[in-house]
Amino acid sequence: MSIITIERKVLEKNDEVARQNRELFADHGIFVLNMVSSPGAGKTSILERTLERLRNELDIAVIEGDVQTDLDARRVAKYNVPAVQIVTRGGCHLEANLVRDALANLELKAIDLLIIENVGNLVCPSNYDLGEAMKVVVASTTEGDDKPLKYPAMFRNASVLILNKIDLLPYVQCNLSILKENALKINPSLTVFETSCTTGQGIDAWCEWLAENSRRKTAS
Amino acid sequence: MSIITIERKVLEKNDEVARQNRELFADHGIFVLNMVSSPGAGKTSILERTLERLRNELDIAVIEGDVQTDLDARRVAKYNVPAVQIVTRGGCHLEANLVRDALANLELKAIDLLIIENVGNLVCPSNYDLGEAMKVVVASTTEGDDKPLKYPAMFRNASVLILNKIDLLPYVQCNLSILKENALKINPSLTVFETSCTTGQGIDAWCEWLAENSRRKTAS
Repeated sequence: MSIITIERKVLEKNDEVARQNRELFADHGIFVLNMVSSPGAGKTSILERTLERLRNELDIAVIEGDVQTDLDARRVAKYNVPAVQIVTRGGCHLEANLVRDALANLELKAIDLLIIENVGNLVCPSNYDLGEAMKVVVASTTEGDDKPLKYPAMFRNASVLILNKIDLLPYVQCNLSILKENALKINPSLTVFETSCTTGQGIDAWCEWLAENSRRKTAS
Repeated sequence: MSIITIERKVLEKNDEVARQNRELFADHGIFVLNMVSSPGAGKTSILERTLERLRNELDIAVIEGDVQTDLDARRVAKYNVPAVQIVTRGGCHLEANLVRDALANLELKAIDLLIIENVGNLVCPSNYDLGEAMKVVVASTTEGDDKPLKYPAMFRNASVLILNKIDLLPYVQCNLSILKENALKINPSLTVFETSCTTGQGIDAWCEWLAENSRRKTAS
Protein backbone atom coordinates (compact mmCIF):
# COMPACT_ATOMS: atom_id res chain seq x y z
CA MET A 1 0.00 0.00 0.00
CA SER A 2 1.58 3.25 -1.06
CA ILE A 3 1.46 6.66 0.59
CA ILE A 4 -0.17 8.12 -2.48
CA THR A 5 -3.07 5.69 -2.15
CA ILE A 6 -3.57 6.63 1.48
CA GLU A 7 -3.42 10.33 0.67
CA ARG A 8 -5.94 9.87 -2.13
CA LYS A 9 -8.26 8.03 0.26
CA VAL A 10 -7.98 10.86 2.79
CA LEU A 11 -8.83 13.39 0.09
CA GLU A 12 -11.73 11.28 -1.23
CA LYS A 13 -13.14 10.91 2.27
CA ASN A 14 -12.72 14.65 2.80
CA ASP A 15 -14.46 15.47 -0.49
CA GLU A 16 -17.44 13.32 0.50
CA VAL A 17 -17.86 15.14 3.84
CA ALA A 18 -17.33 18.48 2.08
CA ARG A 19 -20.16 17.57 -0.29
CA GLN A 20 -22.42 16.89 2.69
CA ASN A 21 -21.43 20.21 4.30
CA ARG A 22 -22.16 22.01 1.03
CA GLU A 23 -25.64 20.45 0.86
CA LEU A 24 -26.31 21.53 4.43
CA PHE A 25 -25.20 25.10 3.64
CA ALA A 26 -27.42 25.14 0.52
CA ASP A 27 -30.43 23.87 2.51
CA HIS A 28 -30.02 26.79 4.93
CA GLY A 29 -29.10 29.39 2.30
CA ILE A 30 -25.75 30.12 3.95
CA PHE A 31 -22.96 31.80 1.99
CA VAL A 32 -19.71 30.18 3.15
CA LEU A 33 -16.16 31.43 2.68
CA ASN A 34 -12.92 29.60 3.42
CA MET A 35 -10.26 32.24 4.20
CA VAL A 36 -6.69 31.12 3.62
CA SER A 37 -3.27 32.80 3.79
CA SER A 38 0.24 32.71 5.23
CA PRO A 39 0.47 33.20 8.99
CA GLY A 40 0.04 36.88 9.82
CA ALA A 41 -1.28 38.07 6.45
CA GLY A 42 -4.24 39.63 8.25
CA LYS A 43 -7.16 37.19 7.98
CA THR A 44 -8.41 37.91 11.50
CA SER A 45 -7.98 41.67 11.12
CA ILE A 46 -10.00 41.65 7.89
CA LEU A 47 -12.61 39.56 9.70
CA GLU A 48 -12.77 42.13 12.52
CA ARG A 49 -13.22 45.03 10.07
CA THR A 50 -15.87 42.99 8.24
CA LEU A 51 -17.82 42.21 11.41
CA GLU A 52 -17.70 45.87 12.46
CA ARG A 53 -19.40 46.87 9.21
CA LEU A 54 -21.74 43.96 8.46
CA ARG A 55 -22.87 42.39 11.74
CA ASN A 56 -26.01 44.58 11.95
CA GLU A 57 -26.85 43.95 8.33
CA LEU A 58 -26.28 40.18 8.09
CA ASP A 59 -26.34 37.24 10.48
CA ILE A 60 -22.69 36.20 10.48
CA ALA A 61 -20.98 33.26 12.18
CA VAL A 62 -17.28 32.41 12.30
CA ILE A 63 -15.30 29.19 12.55
CA GLU A 64 -11.67 29.75 13.54
CA GLY A 65 -8.96 27.21 12.72
CA ASP A 66 -5.64 27.31 14.54
CA VAL A 67 -2.81 24.94 15.28
CA GLN A 68 -2.89 26.07 18.91
CA THR A 69 -4.71 28.68 21.09
CA ASP A 70 -8.18 30.24 20.86
CA LEU A 71 -6.80 33.78 20.49
CA ASP A 72 -8.61 34.39 17.19
CA ALA A 73 -12.02 33.15 18.35
CA ARG A 74 -11.67 35.50 21.33
CA ARG A 75 -10.91 38.44 19.06
CA VAL A 76 -13.95 37.64 16.94
CA ALA A 77 -16.30 36.94 19.86
CA LYS A 78 -15.93 40.58 20.95
CA TYR A 79 -18.18 41.48 18.03
CA ASN A 80 -21.02 39.40 19.49
CA VAL A 81 -21.21 36.91 16.66
CA PRO A 82 -21.30 33.13 17.15
CA ALA A 83 -17.71 31.88 16.96
CA VAL A 84 -16.33 28.35 17.20
CA GLN A 85 -12.62 27.62 17.57
CA ILE A 86 -11.11 24.49 16.07
CA VAL A 87 -7.65 23.74 17.50
CA THR A 88 -5.87 21.27 15.22
CA ARG A 89 -3.06 20.50 17.74
CA GLY A 90 -0.32 20.41 15.13
CA GLY A 91 -2.53 19.83 12.09
CA CYS A 92 -1.55 22.09 9.19
CA HIS A 93 -5.02 22.63 7.66
CA LEU A 94 -8.74 22.30 8.36
CA GLU A 95 -10.64 19.29 7.02
CA ALA A 96 -14.33 18.96 6.18
CA ASN A 97 -15.07 16.69 9.15
CA LEU A 98 -13.66 19.24 11.61
CA VAL A 99 -15.94 21.88 10.09
CA ARG A 100 -18.90 19.46 10.25
CA ASP A 101 -18.23 18.90 13.96
CA ALA A 102 -17.95 22.65 14.56
CA LEU A 103 -21.35 23.20 12.86
CA ALA A 104 -23.00 21.29 15.72
CA ASN A 105 -22.26 24.39 17.85
CA LEU A 106 -23.99 26.83 15.49
CA GLU A 107 -27.65 27.52 14.83
CA LEU A 108 -27.59 27.15 11.05
CA LYS A 109 -31.02 28.57 10.31
CA ALA A 110 -29.95 31.86 11.92
CA ILE A 111 -26.89 32.35 9.67
CA ASP A 112 -26.60 34.25 6.35
CA LEU A 113 -22.83 34.25 6.10
CA LEU A 114 -20.33 31.80 7.58
CA ILE A 115 -16.67 32.69 7.43
CA ILE A 116 -14.19 29.88 8.09
CA GLU A 117 -10.70 31.14 8.90
CA ASN A 118 -8.28 28.37 8.04
CA VAL A 119 -4.88 27.64 9.63
CA GLY A 120 -2.21 30.10 8.44
CA ASN A 121 -0.52 28.05 5.73
CA LEU A 122 -0.18 28.90 2.06
CA VAL A 123 0.31 25.28 0.97
CA CYS A 124 -1.72 22.52 2.63
CA PRO A 125 -5.23 24.08 2.97
CA SER A 126 -5.39 24.45 -0.83
CA ASN A 127 -6.08 20.71 -1.21
CA TYR A 128 -8.94 20.45 1.26
CA ASP A 129 -12.50 21.36 0.27
CA LEU A 130 -14.52 22.25 3.38
CA GLY A 131 -17.84 22.64 1.54
CA GLU A 132 -17.36 26.40 1.08
CA ALA A 133 -18.84 28.46 -1.78
CA MET A 134 -15.38 29.87 -2.44
CA LYS A 135 -11.87 30.24 -1.09
CA VAL A 136 -10.63 33.75 -0.32
CA VAL A 137 -6.85 34.02 -0.30
CA VAL A 138 -5.29 36.93 1.59
CA ALA A 139 -1.81 38.00 0.45
CA SER A 140 -0.02 40.72 2.33
CA THR A 141 2.24 43.23 0.58
CA THR A 142 4.94 42.50 3.17
CA GLU A 143 5.31 38.97 1.79
CA GLY A 144 6.62 40.29 -1.53
CA ASP A 145 5.22 40.16 -5.04
CA ASP A 146 6.47 36.68 -6.02
CA LYS A 147 4.24 34.56 -3.76
CA PRO A 148 1.54 33.63 -6.36
CA LEU A 149 4.29 32.10 -8.52
CA LYS A 150 5.85 30.25 -5.59
CA TYR A 151 2.60 28.96 -4.07
CA PRO A 152 0.39 28.63 -7.17
CA ALA A 153 -2.14 26.03 -5.94
CA MET A 154 -3.67 28.38 -3.40
CA PHE A 155 -4.13 31.17 -5.93
CA ARG A 156 -5.43 28.72 -8.55
CA ASN A 157 -8.06 27.29 -6.19
CA ALA A 158 -9.27 30.63 -4.80
CA SER A 159 -12.05 32.79 -6.27
CA VAL A 160 -11.17 35.97 -4.40
CA LEU A 161 -7.80 37.58 -3.67
CA ILE A 162 -7.45 40.21 -0.96
CA LEU A 163 -4.21 42.16 -1.23
CA ASN A 164 -3.81 43.34 2.35
CA LYS A 165 -1.53 45.83 4.16
CA ILE A 166 -1.40 48.18 1.17
CA ASP A 167 -0.61 51.00 3.64
CA LEU A 168 2.85 49.42 4.02
CA LEU A 169 3.71 49.63 0.30
CA PRO A 170 6.01 52.67 0.75
CA TYR A 171 8.15 50.69 3.20
CA VAL A 172 8.44 47.23 1.62
CA GLN A 173 9.94 45.65 -1.47
CA CYS A 174 6.67 44.86 -3.23
CA ASN A 175 5.36 46.10 -6.56
CA LEU A 176 1.55 45.93 -6.30
CA SER A 177 1.07 45.76 -10.09
CA ILE A 178 3.50 42.85 -10.38
CA LEU A 179 1.87 41.08 -7.42
CA LYS A 180 -1.55 41.40 -9.12
CA GLU A 181 -0.13 40.41 -12.50
CA ASN A 182 1.51 37.30 -10.99
CA ALA A 183 -1.75 36.28 -9.28
CA LEU A 184 -3.84 36.79 -12.43
CA LYS A 185 -1.26 34.85 -14.46
CA ILE A 186 -1.98 31.86 -12.19
CA ASN A 187 -5.75 32.48 -12.08
CA PRO A 188 -7.24 35.08 -14.46
CA SER A 189 -10.73 34.80 -12.90
CA LEU A 190 -9.73 36.05 -9.43
CA THR A 191 -11.84 38.88 -8.01
CA VAL A 192 -9.26 41.22 -6.46
CA PHE A 193 -9.61 43.64 -3.53
CA GLU A 194 -6.89 45.90 -2.13
CA THR A 195 -7.22 46.57 1.59
CA SER A 196 -5.60 48.03 4.67
CA CYS A 197 -7.01 47.18 8.07
CA THR A 198 -5.00 50.06 9.54
CA THR A 199 -6.39 52.85 7.33
CA GLY A 200 -9.63 51.07 6.40
CA GLN A 201 -8.91 51.50 2.69
CA GLY A 202 -10.75 49.00 0.49
CA ILE A 203 -12.75 47.45 3.33
CA ASP A 204 -16.01 49.02 2.10
CA ALA A 205 -15.66 47.56 -1.40
CA TRP A 206 -14.94 44.12 0.04
CA CYS A 207 -17.90 44.34 2.44
CA GLU A 208 -20.26 45.48 -0.32
CA TRP A 209 -19.24 42.51 -2.46
CA LEU A 210 -19.65 40.21 0.54
CA ALA A 211 -23.10 41.54 1.50
CA GLU A 212 -24.29 41.36 -2.12
CA ASN A 213 -23.15 37.73 -2.47
CA SER A 214 -24.57 36.71 0.91
CA ARG A 215 -27.98 38.21 0.04
CA ARG A 216 -28.01 36.57 -3.38
CA LYS A 217 -27.31 33.21 -1.72
CA THR A 218 -29.96 33.67 0.98
CA ALA A 219 -32.55 34.69 -1.63
CA SER A 220 -31.84 31.78 -3.96
CA MET B 1 -3.68 0.08 8.52
CA SER B 2 -4.18 3.54 9.96
CA ILE B 3 -3.00 6.89 8.69
CA ILE B 4 -1.05 7.45 11.89
CA THR B 5 0.99 4.30 11.24
CA ILE B 6 1.82 5.45 7.74
CA GLU B 7 2.79 8.90 8.96
CA ARG B 8 4.99 7.40 11.65
CA LYS B 9 6.66 5.21 9.03
CA VAL B 10 7.28 8.27 6.84
CA LEU B 11 8.85 10.09 9.79
CA GLU B 12 10.94 7.07 10.83
CA LYS B 13 12.20 6.67 7.27
CA ASN B 14 12.96 10.40 7.18
CA ASP B 15 14.83 10.28 10.50
CA GLU B 16 17.01 7.46 9.23
CA VAL B 17 18.01 9.41 6.11
CA ALA B 18 18.50 12.55 8.23
CA ARG B 19 20.88 10.56 10.45
CA GLN B 20 22.89 9.56 7.35
CA ASN B 21 22.95 13.18 6.14
CA ARG B 22 24.15 14.31 9.58
CA GLU B 23 26.98 11.76 9.50
CA LEU B 24 27.99 12.96 6.06
CA PHE B 25 28.02 16.58 7.26
CA ALA B 26 30.09 15.61 10.32
CA ASP B 27 32.62 13.71 8.15
CA HIS B 28 33.14 16.85 6.07
CA GLY B 29 33.02 19.33 8.98
CA ILE B 30 30.08 21.22 7.48
CA PHE B 31 27.89 23.43 9.67
CA VAL B 32 24.33 23.00 8.40
CA LEU B 33 21.32 25.22 9.06
CA ASN B 34 17.68 24.54 8.18
CA MET B 35 15.96 27.94 7.74
CA VAL B 36 12.22 27.90 8.26
CA SER B 37 9.49 30.57 8.32
CA SER B 38 6.13 31.68 6.95
CA PRO B 39 6.12 32.63 3.26
CA GLY B 40 7.64 36.09 2.83
CA ALA B 41 9.22 36.43 6.29
CA GLY B 42 12.54 37.21 4.62
CA LYS B 43 14.59 33.99 4.59
CA THR B 44 16.04 34.67 1.13
CA SER B 45 16.77 38.32 1.92
CA ILE B 46 18.63 37.33 5.09
CA LEU B 47 20.52 34.77 3.04
CA GLU B 48 21.49 37.45 0.50
CA ARG B 49 22.76 39.80 3.23
CA THR B 50 24.62 36.85 4.79
CA LEU B 51 26.30 35.87 1.52
CA GLU B 52 27.33 39.51 0.88
CA ARG B 53 29.19 39.57 4.19
CA LEU B 54 30.53 36.02 4.57
CA ARG B 55 31.18 34.55 1.12
CA ASN B 56 34.83 35.70 1.09
CA GLU B 57 35.38 34.46 4.61
CA LEU B 58 33.70 31.04 4.44
CA ASP B 59 32.90 28.49 1.77
CA ILE B 60 29.12 28.62 1.70
CA ALA B 61 26.62 26.53 -0.27
CA VAL B 62 22.85 26.86 -0.41
CA ILE B 63 19.99 24.42 -0.99
CA GLU B 64 16.72 26.18 -1.83
CA GLY B 65 13.36 24.49 -1.27
CA ASP B 66 10.25 25.80 -2.99
CA VAL B 67 6.84 24.49 -3.96
CA GLN B 68 7.33 25.94 -7.42
CA THR B 69 9.88 28.10 -9.34
CA ASP B 70 13.65 28.50 -9.01
CA LEU B 71 13.40 32.22 -8.23
CA ASP B 72 15.26 31.89 -4.91
CA ALA B 73 18.16 29.81 -6.25
CA ARG B 74 18.59 32.46 -8.96
CA ARG B 75 18.71 35.24 -6.36
CA VAL B 76 21.34 33.32 -4.40
CA ALA B 77 23.40 32.26 -7.42
CA LYS B 78 24.17 35.94 -8.11
CA TYR B 79 26.54 35.79 -5.14
CA ASN B 80 28.63 33.14 -6.88
CA VAL B 81 28.03 30.41 -4.33
CA PRO B 82 27.00 26.84 -5.22
CA ALA B 83 23.17 26.74 -5.10
CA VAL B 84 20.79 23.83 -5.70
CA GLN B 85 17.05 24.32 -6.10
CA ILE B 86 14.63 21.63 -4.91
CA VAL B 87 11.14 22.13 -6.36
CA THR B 88 8.64 20.09 -4.32
CA ARG B 89 5.79 20.48 -6.85
CA GLY B 90 3.09 20.95 -4.25
CA GLY B 91 4.98 19.41 -1.31
CA CYS B 92 4.68 21.53 1.83
CA HIS B 93 8.12 20.81 3.34
CA LEU B 94 11.57 19.44 2.56
CA GLU B 95 12.45 15.87 3.54
CA ALA B 96 15.85 14.36 4.28
CA ASN B 97 15.92 12.30 1.06
CA LEU B 98 15.38 15.43 -1.08
CA VAL B 99 18.34 17.05 0.66
CA ARG B 100 20.44 13.88 0.19
CA ASP B 101 19.67 13.96 -3.55
CA ALA B 102 20.57 17.66 -3.72
CA LEU B 103 23.93 16.97 -2.04
CA ALA B 104 24.98 14.98 -5.12
CA ASN B 105 25.24 18.37 -6.88
CA LEU B 106 27.59 19.90 -4.31
CA GLU B 107 31.27 19.36 -3.64
CA LEU B 108 31.04 18.62 0.08
CA LYS B 109 34.73 18.84 0.89
CA ALA B 110 34.74 22.46 -0.31
CA ILE B 111 31.92 23.61 2.03
CA ASP B 112 32.19 25.11 5.54
CA LEU B 113 28.59 26.23 5.84
CA LEU B 114 25.48 24.82 4.15
CA ILE B 115 22.26 26.78 4.47
CA ILE B 116 19.07 24.94 3.54
CA GLU B 117 16.14 27.29 2.94
CA ASN B 118 12.97 25.30 3.54
CA VAL B 119 9.55 25.79 1.93
CA GLY B 120 7.72 28.82 3.43
CA ASN B 121 5.45 27.10 5.92
CA LEU B 122 5.32 27.62 9.68
CA VAL B 123 3.72 24.22 10.38
CA CYS B 124 4.87 21.17 8.41
CA PRO B 125 8.68 21.62 8.17
CA SER B 126 8.89 21.50 11.99
CA ASN B 127 8.41 17.71 11.94
CA TYR B 128 11.09 16.87 9.41
CA ASP B 129 14.73 16.55 10.43
CA LEU B 130 17.00 17.10 7.40
CA GLY B 131 20.22 16.27 9.21
CA GLU B 132 20.91 19.93 10.10
CA ALA B 133 22.89 21.10 13.13
CA MET B 134 20.02 23.44 13.99
CA LYS B 135 16.82 24.98 12.76
CA VAL B 136 16.71 28.76 12.40
CA VAL B 137 13.18 30.17 12.46
CA VAL B 138 12.61 33.61 10.93
CA ALA B 139 9.60 35.55 12.24
CA SER B 140 8.76 38.89 10.69
CA THR B 141 7.32 41.75 12.75
CA THR B 142 4.58 42.18 10.14
CA GLU B 143 3.13 38.79 11.13
CA GLY B 144 2.22 40.08 14.60
CA ASP B 145 3.46 39.14 18.06
CA ASP B 146 1.18 36.13 18.67
CA LYS B 147 2.71 33.69 16.16
CA PRO B 148 4.96 31.71 18.58
CA LEU B 149 1.84 30.86 20.62
CA LYS B 150 -0.17 29.89 17.55
CA TYR B 151 2.58 27.85 15.84
CA PRO B 152 4.53 26.53 18.83
CA ALA B 153 6.17 23.43 17.29
CA MET B 154 8.38 25.46 14.98
CA PHE B 155 9.64 27.70 17.79
CA ARG B 156 10.08 24.69 20.11
CA ASN B 157 12.20 22.79 17.57
CA ALA B 158 14.38 25.75 16.52
CA SER B 159 17.65 26.78 18.17
CA VAL B 160 17.82 30.27 16.68
CA LEU B 161 15.11 32.89 16.18
CA ILE B 162 15.62 35.80 13.78
CA LEU B 163 13.11 38.59 14.32
CA ASN B 164 13.17 40.22 10.90
CA LYS B 165 11.77 43.45 9.40
CA ILE B 166 12.30 45.40 12.63
CA ASP B 167 12.45 48.56 10.50
CA LEU B 168 8.68 48.17 10.00
CA LEU B 169 7.86 48.24 13.74
CA PRO B 170 6.58 51.85 13.67
CA TYR B 171 4.00 50.90 11.05
CA VAL B 172 2.65 47.53 12.24
CA GLN B 173 0.69 46.15 15.18
CA CYS B 174 3.54 44.23 16.77
CA ASN B 175 5.10 44.65 20.20
CA LEU B 176 8.67 43.35 19.87
CA SER B 177 9.01 42.64 23.61
CA ILE B 178 5.82 40.59 23.62
CA LEU B 179 6.89 38.75 20.47
CA LYS B 180 10.19 37.82 22.12
CA GLU B 181 8.49 36.96 25.40
CA ASN B 182 6.03 34.65 23.58
CA ALA B 183 8.84 32.91 21.73
CA LEU B 184 10.94 32.41 24.87
CA LYS B 185 7.86 31.12 26.72
CA ILE B 186 7.69 28.32 24.13
CA ASN B 187 11.46 27.77 24.02
CA PRO B 188 13.63 29.53 26.65
CA SER B 189 16.88 28.37 25.01
CA LEU B 190 16.38 30.23 21.71
CA THR B 191 19.28 32.44 20.57
CA VAL B 192 17.55 35.60 19.32
CA PHE B 193 18.67 38.10 16.67
CA GLU B 194 16.80 41.23 15.57
CA THR B 195 17.37 42.16 11.95
CA SER B 196 16.31 44.37 9.08
CA CYS B 197 17.46 43.49 5.58
CA THR B 198 16.43 46.99 4.46
CA THR B 199 18.57 48.98 6.93
CA GLY B 200 21.09 46.20 7.61
CA GLN B 201 20.49 46.42 11.36
CA GLY B 202 21.44 43.26 13.24
CA ILE B 203 22.93 41.50 10.22
CA ASP B 204 26.50 41.86 11.55
CA ALA B 205 25.66 40.21 14.88
CA TRP B 206 23.96 37.31 13.07
CA CYS B 207 26.88 36.89 10.67
CA GLU B 208 29.44 36.96 13.49
CA TRP B 209 27.53 34.22 15.31
CA LEU B 210 27.28 32.24 12.09
CA ALA B 211 30.98 32.57 11.21
CA GLU B 212 31.99 31.65 14.77
CA ASN B 213 29.80 28.51 14.74
CA SER B 214 30.91 27.49 11.25
CA ARG B 215 34.59 27.80 12.22
CA ARG B 216 34.06 25.83 15.43
CA LYS B 217 32.42 23.06 13.42
CA THR B 218 35.12 22.99 10.75
CA ALA B 219 37.83 22.88 13.42
CA SER B 220 36.24 20.05 15.41
